[in-house]
Amino acid sequence: MADKEPLFARVALIGIGLIGSSLAHAIRRKGLAGEIVVQTRRAETLKRAEELGLGDRYETDATEAVKGADLVILSIPVGACGPVAAEIGPHLQNGAILTDVGSTKGTVVSDVAPHVPEGVHFIPGHPIAGTEHSGPDAGFASLFEGRWTILTPLPDADPAAVAKLTDFWTACGSKVETMDPEHHDRVLAIVSHLPHIIAYNIVGTADDLEAVSKSEVIKYSASGFRDFTRLAASDPTMWRDVCLSNRDAILEMLGRFSEDLASLQRAIRWGDGDKLFDMFTRTRAVRRSIIEAGQEVDAPDFGRHPEIAGVNVKDGD
Amino acid sequence: MADKEPLFARVALIGIGLIGSSLAHAIRRKGLAGEIVVQTRRAETLKRAEELGLGDRYETDATEAVKGADLVILSIPVGACGPVAAEIGPHLQNGAILTDVGSTKGTVVSDVAPHVPEGVHFIPGHPIAGTEHSGPDAGFASLFEGRWTILTPLPDADPAAVAKLTDFWTACGSKVETMDPEHHDRVLAIVSHLPHIIAYNIVGTADDLEAVSKSEVIKYSASGFRDFTRLAASDPTMWRDVCLSNRDAILEMLGRFSEDLASLQRAIRWGDGDKLFDMFTRTRAVRRSIIEAGQEVDAPDFGRHPEIAGVNVKDGD
Repeated sequence: MADKEPLFARVALIGIGLIGSSLAHAIRRKGLAGEIVVQTRRAETLKRAEELGLGDRYETDATEAVKGADLVILSIPVGACGPVAAEIGPHLQNGAILTDVGSTKGTVVSDVAPHVPEGVHFIPGHPIAGTEHSGPDAGFASLFEGRWTILTPLPDADPAAVAKLTDFWTACGSKVETMDPEHHDRVLAIVSHLPHIIAYNIVGTADDLEAVSKSEVIKYSASGFRDFTRLAASDPTMWRDVCLSNRDAILEMLGRFSEDLASLQRAIRWGDGDKLFDMFTRTRAVRRSIIEAGQEVDAPDFGRHPEIAGVNVKDGD
Repeated sequence: MADKEPLFARVALIGIGLIGSSLAHAIRRKGLAGEIVVQTRRAETLKRAEELGLGDRYETDATEAVKGADLVILSIPVGACGPVAAEIGPHLQNGAILTDVGSTKGTVVSDVAPHVPEGVHFIPGHPIAGTEHSGPDAGFASLFEGRWTILTPLPDADPAAVAKLTDFWTACGSKVETMDPEHHDRVLAIVSHLPHIIAYNIVGTADDLEAVSKSEVIKYSASGFRDFTRLAASDPTMWRDVCLSNRDAILEMLGRFSEDLASLQRAIRWGDGDKLFDMFTRTRAVRRSIIEAGQEVDAPDFGRHPEIAGVNVKDGD
């Protein structure tokens, strides 16, 4: 790749958390930029990014960071996208692509679009990838490999710019899909936002019990509970903003979930074994499909037992 | 171990699913029995157990299997424990230990105890270990290593028999705790039963949507949803029986969960960012405690990314 002209002359990474730092690694590994400019407001975080060698240049000032960049990526909580767009808008280079990685798209479009000057291509995006860790140390180059990135271009988007951003994500190892922002937000409400909210909630419920001690919850967590704690360890700021900015779709999914749970609860109360068996049977097929689609590893118990985990894991005993 | 007298002369494994077959492997590896008798009703399953070499003798008739055994372990759905106890009771050897591995203990005690003849030590038990896989092929020797087994001996239990069963589980790699059946059932309702029910429910909710297609749920499942599908792929018969036999404790936990969820839902509806942030912050500490207690691996994203998964995982690229 080093012999070829890089896809972008200068990429400005606004925000250097899990996604920003993973992008830095991927861009470097694949040679996708002539120069990587890393920006974050907190001096301490920026210093850490520099220690990790994530960029070629480091800025606390976003307006400085975006100057002369032909690709600007906002990797910040969705609630911060509007204010940052207002700040950097006047400094964006003509012809540049401005994108983001936020977990909701409707509010990002309405918050950011008004600040984008003519001649700049604003193409919202969302890589469906992550871990429960956050900060510049959490990133790694292969985060996007085999995962999907959803782009939600506006109706008047320049096809050439969309194609170039698609090439970028493809080079990062991602598969790319496009859809409108509203549909994105409903899809994510069920596949991501509801699971996180439910996980946060159940961990909170367990934490509040009087009859069962915290130490018992911890000790016996291998019986199911611990699976939820991974999602419930995600970044609180990010998830607060997701809840605030995708309210309607999340409330819709929560309504359906609660309705279904009430029905299940009734089956338990009335001892309806046949109904419970039916409900517990159809869900197996969903996991099989996810494994077949390459979106999940097939190791039993998430590979926690190296002895049976399969090819990707060696015995650590 | 082979030079020492084994802990038991003959162990009868009634049921040879995930737990039964894992016990067979562990007993063999640690030399805990002079003879392993494997029993299951279905001829096909028994044949598979024999192909896998899980026992020394194979029976479809439980009464034949328990004759002369000094340890009998029921590894069958909790709903089957009462009928099987009624069947085998008259054939149990004087001085034998009868135990089980069921996920609920109150109903197992009330269903099984009446059928246990004098001179037989009935000590209910529950290893807090498992995977989402089931059947005789799913077992492996290290399943119980580092996990907890809870024994719920009755008030008149023989201390020597309890100590011997404790030695057995310890030899299988487990840590052992005792408590009364009622407390066990409340602890498990929150750490295991509620998580499984919630997981089954959310997968069902997603499967029912009209606005989001099944293929979209599958494609984008890496954003959170897939974590729930592991629990929702567990054995439906087992979980039907758990719901039927631990009804009161489960309904209590479901009530608390729904109450908390309603409060979270209200915070989302009214845009109460501070409350959401607080709720999403305190749950991080729970995961850290579980990792520190050795009940969870510290690999980000459950080690799905070999590149960052840590010492137990090698790069499979």
